Amino acid sequence: MYRTNTCGELRLGNAGMEVTLSGWVQASRDLGGMTFIDLRDRYGITQLVFNMEDDAALCQQARKLGREFVIQATGTVRERTSKNPNRPTGDIEIVVTALKTLNASKVPPFTIEDETDGGDELRMKYRYLDIRRNPVQEKLIFRARVALETRKYLSGAGFIEVETPNLIKSTPEGARDFVVPSRVNQGQFYALPQSPQTFKQILMVAGMDRYFQIVKCFRDEDLRADRQPEFTQIDCEMAFVTREDILQTFEGLTRHLFQTVLNVDLGEFPRMSYDEAMTRYGSDKPDVRFGMEFVEFNDLAKGHGFQVFDDAELIVGICVPGQAETYSNKMLNDLTEWVKRPQIGAKGLVNIKLQADGSIKSSISKYYTDEQLKAWAEKAGAGANDMILILSGETDKVRKQLNELRLEMGTRLGMRAPGTFKPLWVVDFALLEWDEEANRFHAMHHPFTSPKASDIDRMLDGDHETMKSLRADAYDLVINGVEIGGGSIRIHDRALQEKNFKLLGFTPEQAENQFGFLMGAFEYGAPPHGGIAFGFDRLCAMMKGETSIRDFIAFPKNNQCRDVMIDAPSSIDDAQLKELALKVEGRK
Amino acid sequence: MYRTNTCGELRLGNAGMEVTLSGWVQASRDLGGMTFIDLRDRYGITQLVFNMEDDAALCQQARKLGREFVIQATGTVRERTSKNPNRPTGDIEIVVTALKTLNASKVPPFTIEDETDGGDELRMKYRYLDIRRNPVQEKLIFRARVALETRKYLSGAGFIEVETPNLIKSTPEGARDFVVPSRVNQGQFYALPQSPQTFKQILMVAGMDRYFQIVKCFRDEDLRADRQPEFTQIDCEMAFVTREDILQTFEGLTRHLFQTVLNVDLGEFPRMSYDEAMTRYGSDKPDVRFGMEFVEFNDLAKGHGFQVFDDAELIVGICVPGQAETYSNKMLNDLTEWVKRPQIGAKGLVNIKLQADGSIKSSISKYYTDEQLKAWAEKAGAGANDMILILSGETDKVRKQLNELRLEMGTRLGMRAPGTFKPLWVVDFALLEWDEEANRFHAMHHPFTSPKASDIDRMLDGDHETMKSLRADAYDLVINGVEIGGGSIRIHDRALQEKNFKLLGFTPEQAENQFGFLMGAFEYGAPPHGGIAFGFDRLCAMMKGETSIRDFIAFPKNNQCRDVMIDAPSSIDDAQLKELALKVEGRK
Repeated sequence: MYRTNTCGELRLGNAGMEVTLSGWVQASRDLGGMTFIDLRDRYGITQLVFNMEDDAALCQQARKLGREFVIQATGTVRERTSKNPNRPTGDIEIVVTALKTLNASKVPPFTIEDETDGGDELRMKYRYLDIRRNPVQEKLIFRARVALETRKYLSGAGFIEVETPNLIKSTPEGARDFVVPSRVNQGQFYALPQSPQTFKQILMVAGMDRYFQIVKCFRDEDLRADRQPEFTQIDCEMAFVTREDILQTFEGLTRHLFQTVLNVDLGEFPRMSYDEAMTRYGSDKPDVRFGMEFVEFNDLAKGHGFQVFDDAELIVGICVPGQAETYSNKMLNDLTEWVKRPQIGAKGLVNIKLQADGSIKSSISKYYTDEQLKAWAEKAGAGANDMILILSGETDKVRKQLNELRLEMGTRLGMRAPGTFKPLWVVDFALLEWDEEANRFHAMHHPFTSPKASDIDRMLDGDHETMKSLRADAYDLVINGVEIGGGSIRIHDRALQEKNFKLLGFTPEQAENQFGFLMGAFEYGAPPHGGIAFGFDRLCAMMKGETSIRDFIAFPKNNQCRDVMIDAPSSIDDAQLKELALKVEGRK
Repeated sequence: MYRTNTCGELRLGNAGMEVTLSGWVQASRDLGGMTFIDLRDRYGITQLVFNMEDDAALCQQARKLGREFVIQATGTVRERTSKNPNRPTGDIEIVVTALKTLNASKVPPFTIEDETDGGDELRMKYRYLDIRRNPVQEKLIFRARVALETRKYLSGAGFIEVETPNLIKSTPEGARDFVVPSRVNQGQFYALPQSPQTFKQILMVAGMDRYFQIVKCFRDEDLRADRQPEFTQIDCEMAFVTREDILQTFEGLTRHLFQTVLNVDLGEFPRMSYDEAMTRYGSDKPDVRFGMEFVEFNDLAKGHGFQVFDDAELIVGICVPGQAETYSNKMLNDLTEWVKRPQIGAKGLVNIKLQADGSIKSSISKYYTDEQLKAWAEKAGAGANDMILILSGETDKVRKQLNELRLEMGTRLGMRAPGTFKPLWVVDFALLEWDEEANRFHAMHHPFTSPKASDIDRMLDGDHETMKSLRADAYDLVINGVEIGGGSIRIHDRALQEKNFKLLGFTPEQAENQFGFLMGAFEYGAPPHGGIAFGFDRLCAMMKGETSIRDFIAFPKNNQCRDVMIDAPSSIDDAQLKELALKVEGRK
């Protein structure tokens, strides 16, 4: 037996007990005749004390212990004379009578503290040391807690967790698949699932009624800052449901998770159409923790000789409260440069300030009278010391640009404080997106999404323009501007599914080859069904107020898709390639 | 809204209620002016009734519904005149007032009944129909329940579920890996994990203290009857533990699962050394639901002129109770043929019968007197009407053969009844197995298993013969003769791990290349640790008294490693191969 207690559980009430603890040497201090060691494990830190007078040999032994040595110490719990109120075990210490080194440690390449001096690559390479740090360990424990509560809640609501296969069929649609060569069926490949989409639909056809799975998914994409080639979804599907049933169910799940894990009451889950979200926030995942909603000025802006506005499809701004005096010309110039960066791409930034004395100051006062500009202010609901920031240009582009500016101003003004959570359902997305270059439609959600019931007839019969106007029975859950999940009511009718594949540019043969099993299943009594998937890594990060998912994943890959700890991927030997009937190009 | 209730919940107390149900047409019966439809969903079956007199059009509509049509029916709950006591909803029926066909169905290729007429391949191809059948659906629901209870129990015991990566590094040791070509790192490959072994050890070094995961693992082996290329483990690891801590913890888990899910009290978990198991049962996973333990007769058998026994390394038998009169010469001949089949490989079968009148009858009475044979009977504890069956030959081989015979006799005599569960820990395995052909050792468990503490010094210093005698700190949990799980205390010391790799034939470079990260981790304060993994598919099958795991997996592969429903694996296009810098041999 290595320990009677953990390093996090002893209290004043345990004084006098003989205990054995095991853990890591977090720190040690020699103070004259005394040596103190902070012993750490997952549960906390307990102070060990050694005294030269009591046992010189033992004390000498303790002094030789380095950081991160693994030791076992037996001794008596004693009340501390100088207590540490910042530590749950801070009222006691262990007067050690026996000490054993279970394993030594080299000097770690970075400090095992909440704030470390290790850079990203070093932390990833020595991930086993990084995870010893509280902030990382806590995130993994948090993740496990959210997963368990998710499972409890959904199981309690009649959902059955079903494991779907990882070795499935490659489909060229959407992102790239990772493929797995088959040895038994040489020249053929499995694919790792980008999501269990077709299997969960099959499970609905199979009468499972309510399915969920917390499941790994795989996407061979070039990694953006916060993407991982393998990621985890809370994947769900329900039969005999309308959108309303699904929204209610997953509002319930989300509410439960925030309540039990964070003790946060989420309040209302308002709904907003995609069109409205784009008009009011320029984003399909608006952060509604703060206002600064878009105000369109086309009516006031045009026809006054300002060419930029006269030529613009949309003139749109936000009213930044209480910043007119703060934002000097210099700061506004900097902000203009900020929106002109290639990442944002605006051509310029117009401002109108309502000064504290009621006067107006604006970068466009050459073209508009103060009276006219007051009408702008009025439309924007601007008051004294407020500042209106305006962009113009093509509608889609300028909305995206102003969305970025709005978020930036929200951040600068502290309106996006962690700990505040505002959920929002975004609904009524377009079913299809027209891709001018490829001269074809893309599915806005995925090819299995149903049009809204009222649009089904139009879809089966309509012309090209009709197709563009179809609304999908799809929905996204957005919290604090982060897309947590998305889903849809699915097509459950073969004819409609065939029509959709056709619109998406599949030949009948391609559709049959790739998804014939699903369309076949629709012919044997497929119930109406729909579902949703939450990005689990992102949900965890968002709940903890973090922007990066990386530390919520125990062993993440870096931006080159590598695991630098185990050094993967790596070369495999010729015998293995031969068994797979494969040749690597350029390899002898 | 598609339904107010499920097809499993309405009772007499609901009589008079107006309800809407949705589900599948299980069966329909026309009885004169009445039509009855059994409507099915996951929750049960409810009878719908239509009456020509009340609504002829509606009744006609109902008569047109085929098997497996998906319908929605609204009506009033009514007490049945002729109740069905075999069905929870059997006291009521729904007098339907509105009926809607939600989806039609072709005639299913096999019957959707508990006993189906569909063969294996057909059932796999139409898995969505197969899962509609109660026995399959129940197994999947059972599995989900066991998984949830596992998670609750282990989380309650301080275990943290951590997801380990699926894209890891290929290692030639052990079974074949599935590999995944990397596009970003051309010519390099990931491997899918055969188990998260090294990662869970890394998590112990990382201070996670108690880890578990219900996790998919992958093995590219030629499939035996009941293997799958992807399978699921309950994977666990603990730090600062001895074997005793682990056995106690997972005895606790197992006990909990049987208690909560099956309402079965498992009783004692006896322990038996590998050597003892082999001596008493000829198996490292003995079914201890019944006796018939091995009795060795070398002392009584040798030196009486019976060449077969005189030449044999081991003469060993079992005492089959109460079968002397039942087993005629014909039956014994058949049994002899049975043990001589290549699958068993015995050379012959000797029997000694104690007849009811006290006399002895034996196939070797030519060589032994009745008095002598009575000594055999006494040694075997045989009484009136018992029969001793004896095999002889090389020790290892004959034990395996007699194990098969013992299990067969146990089955024939109904001693292996489902519903009875007898757990057993098998401990003290050998650390290393000498492979004469390859002229090297194999790890009996895996290369990370520690020798027993008392054997460590011998391992670091010993000669070849010493190595053969090393015991591993390893253990298997066996229930009813099924190996449910296995594990070990791990090596946590770099020098010992290096020594083990060397014994297993690794060069230092190979060891470093494949497992350098783990040995490196051992140098930074690795705690003593150990763990276990349960075969989750097998655990579920065993708990339900089934021998095949296949129906406990929603979408299993067939014996050719294919998913016949989705038709995977399959060919991928040239563009994708090119991106991966791969060529399929023989493909243009």
